[in-house]
Amino acid sequence: MLAQLPRTQEIPLAEWTHSMQRSVLRQMIAVVSRPGILSFAGGLPDPALFPTADYAAALAHVLATDPKALQYGMPFAPLKQHIVQLMAQRGVVCTEEQVFLTTGAQQGLDVLARLLLDPGGEVMFEEVVYTGAQQVVAPFLPRILPVSTDLAEGMNVDEVEDYMVGGARPSFIYTIPDAHNPLGVSLSQERRERLVELAVAYNVPIIEDDPYGLLQYGDWRLGDWETERFQSPSLPNRRLAISQSLPLRALNDSHVFYLGSFSKIMAPALRLGWIVAPEGLVSKIAVVKEAEDLESSALTQRAVAAYLDGGHLPAHLAILRREYGRRRDAMLAALYRYFPAEARWTEPQGGMFIWVELPAEMDAAALLDTAVTQEKIAFIPGHAFSIPGHHVHNCLRLNFSNCTEAMIEDGIKRLARIINYEL
Amino acid sequence: MLAQLPRTQEIPLAEWTHSMQRSVLRQMIAVVSRPGILSFAGGLPDPALFPTADYAAALAHVLATDPKALQYGMPFAPLKQHIVQLMAQRGVVCTEEQVFLTTGAQQGLDVLARLLLDPGGEVMFEEVVYTGAQQVVAPFLPRILPVSTDLAEGMNVDEVEDYMVGGARPSFIYTIPDAHNPLGVSLSQERRERLVELAVAYNVPIIEDDPYGLLQYGDWRLGDWETERFQSPSLPNRRLAISQSLPLRALNDSHVFYLGSFSKIMAPALRLGWIVAPEGLVSKIAVVKEAEDLESSALTQRAVAAYLDGGHLPAHLAILRREYGRRRDAMLAALYRYFPAEARWTEPQGGMFIWVELPAEMDAAALLDTAVTQEKIAFIPGHAFSIPGHHVHNCLRLNFSNCTEAMIEDGIKRLARIINYEL
Repeated sequence: MLAQLPRTQEIPLAEWTHSMQRSVLRQMIAVVSRPGILSFAGGLPDPALFPTADYAAALAHVLATDPKALQYGMPFAPLKQHIVQLMAQRGVVCTEEQVFLTTGAQQGLDVLARLLLDPGGEVMFEEVVYTGAQQVVAPFLPRILPVSTDLAEGMNVDEVEDYMVGGARPSFIYTIPDAHNPLGVSLSQERRERLVELAVAYNVPIIEDDPYGLLQYGDWRLGDWETERFQSPSLPNRRLAISQSLPLRALNDSHVFYLGSFSKIMAPALRLGWIVAPEGLVSKIAVVKEAEDLESSALTQRAVAAYLDGGHLPAHLAILRREYGRRRDAMLAALYRYFPAEARWTEPQGGMFIWVELPAEMDAAALLDTAVTQEKIAFIPGHAFSIPGHHVHNCLRLNFSNCTEAMIEDGIKRLARIINYEL
Repeated sequence: MLAQLPRTQEIPLAEWTHSMQRSVLRQMIAVVSRPGILSFAGGLPDPALFPTADYAAALAHVLATDPKALQYGMPFAPLKQHIVQLMAQRGVVCTEEQVFLTTGAQQGLDVLARLLLDPGGEVMFEEVVYTGAQQVVAPFLPRILPVSTDLAEGMNVDEVEDYMVGGARPSFIYTIPDAHNPLGVSLSQERRERLVELAVAYNVPIIEDDPYGLLQYGDWRLGDWETERFQSPSLPNRRLAISQSLPLRALNDSHVFYLGSFSKIMAPALRLGWIVAPEGLVSKIAVVKEAEDLESSALTQRAVAAYLDGGHLPAHLAILRREYGRRRDAMLAALYRYFPAEARWTEPQGGMFIWVELPAEMDAAALLDTAVTQEKIAFIPGHAFSIPGHHVHNCLRLNFSNCTEAMIEDGIKRLARIINYEL
């Protein structure tokens, strides 16, 4: 008899959910995270490099001494002071009043989208962009103004200007100027200056996402073996100046929202980040954030502050830079050694990712299938990061932060074997 | 010369921000949290009752033994299993697949609004409602369908039906059926059943917010002194049955989204809550949540699971129920003892709040000024919780969870002195 009852109607959902997509990236990561796979797919820092013992001590200290550690509370001012100092290391002068704490940089981005973007509004993205940025704007069903990215110098700022001259006024421009995810490129100094000038001239704010700004390793130094191939015109970005560029926020504080994060310099499970905002907008940001999750954990705020009080971070960052720098070097060396001459790749100054362009006739999605099946190697095909309508079928994102140098050498060699076979 | 430079233009913000308001509640709490104030204003659990040592041990254990504790990761299945068991204590049968972890119940509410509500859409709220619900929908510039609330039996479900019969189909109905914030009332069993029937019949989902469901103290038992006044017609809600009602989710799993939280039963700084959702919608909820903050802290998920593994919660809940129950009793006794006969109040079965209606000629905002200045007593005037256009000038919300019984007796006595003087 039960079968004759009417089926329950489906609950009506918001309009935007009809075009909702699970992050292609996250879907893929689930697939390629199976045991036995050597994965260059994720965007994970290496848990062996987390400051686990020092952070555990900081947590224990705070819980033993601070009666406010587990309660609701105001943003923890001593943590903001530390962030002001971290920003100074990045070359950014800011005040505590401009620093706003968030539950990770992803929340910072989400809060700013809600502050700046109207339903059906416009945003400016690079054609190949961090997937989390696409997810944040999806509920607004926005029009995306696409800008291409040069693999040596970053976002093509000429195109930004063309849009503005043509009358476009997107609600914001989103970019990762240093060690771009997924492209690995850093924006050139000259383009940074022009981008900020455009933002001010046309009154369009920039969201500067900087998860890797404190993870910069300098230029890769070629070994003897690679030097033979040093002149190859196929290698982009290899003459980038070693000098580190300043964040956009260092150039302007009226139109740049800077997003920082403890996820990559300490650990992701802290879920703690910050915005450095134009000061007049901090109180409005607070209203948006409060609606999202009331506040970020008082315990985490205090424990991170206690960790930073202990003075552990500089030595920890030195270790991360050395280790991740070696892994970047190992991956670049292996790419030079094993990948076909027709391939091109970025040489990141920092961060966690190298972007590889294979010959146009190759399909990265098909390659992934073969790589996983035959060699148990995984990566993310570039199309996972492309905005709708933009096609990058022949590109891969390779992560180098969560494998040893030996695994990188071995994995790139095996991946190259398949590519060379398919070519 | 600098003065002659053009002033920087203001960055254009999203339309809804022009009507943005800082939560009146949070503004007031900042004012009344000054030292020396005896505050019934906040909504804070008592930090002296947090399971600090046991949670610190759980954190230390997890950090020492679980290499995934600080990394990005999938939702922690053992925690979901514990939540299924907690829900069973509430009389709700659910599965792990229906449980979705959130960064506090506030995020659960925010995620559901984004899933269900379109810009300019409709939501159904009680006229006096948790401020966080109003903040969550504000960016949608929604039309609010107001429903009144009976102080003895809760939301007036007849009005819900009238709307539905009249053709209204709000995106959701929001309510706190048990120990309502700020009203302290619990929805009667008969109204629960009717509300769920209406939700199914008209295909309108309910968001059941249940932060206090595990903090129920039974009926208040009148002491000898109060018994004299027991027959007063001015006392609402005093004959409520002791039997605890089942959550709406126990009555229906197709149209009820249940919001749970560890904030009140363990500690707010965990920032950990959950949704029990219609199962077919969990994957969509996951997409919305991922955009907001990627994921909730792996460390917190594991540490709370370890705390629950330790079997500490039942004894801890027993302490909370005993202590908060005594404070509720102390506040009700003091209200009977000192407040004027013209005043009415709710007698909450649980939670943290008592709602007081003063005679209509009194103004709670003016009373707050006098109370803070003359007696250093604080509370929240009822209008902080009213939806736009609804006026509750003569009501107060009193919190009893974060004061000792002696402070409650003293504070209510002093507050009554002012009220009696003003009458």
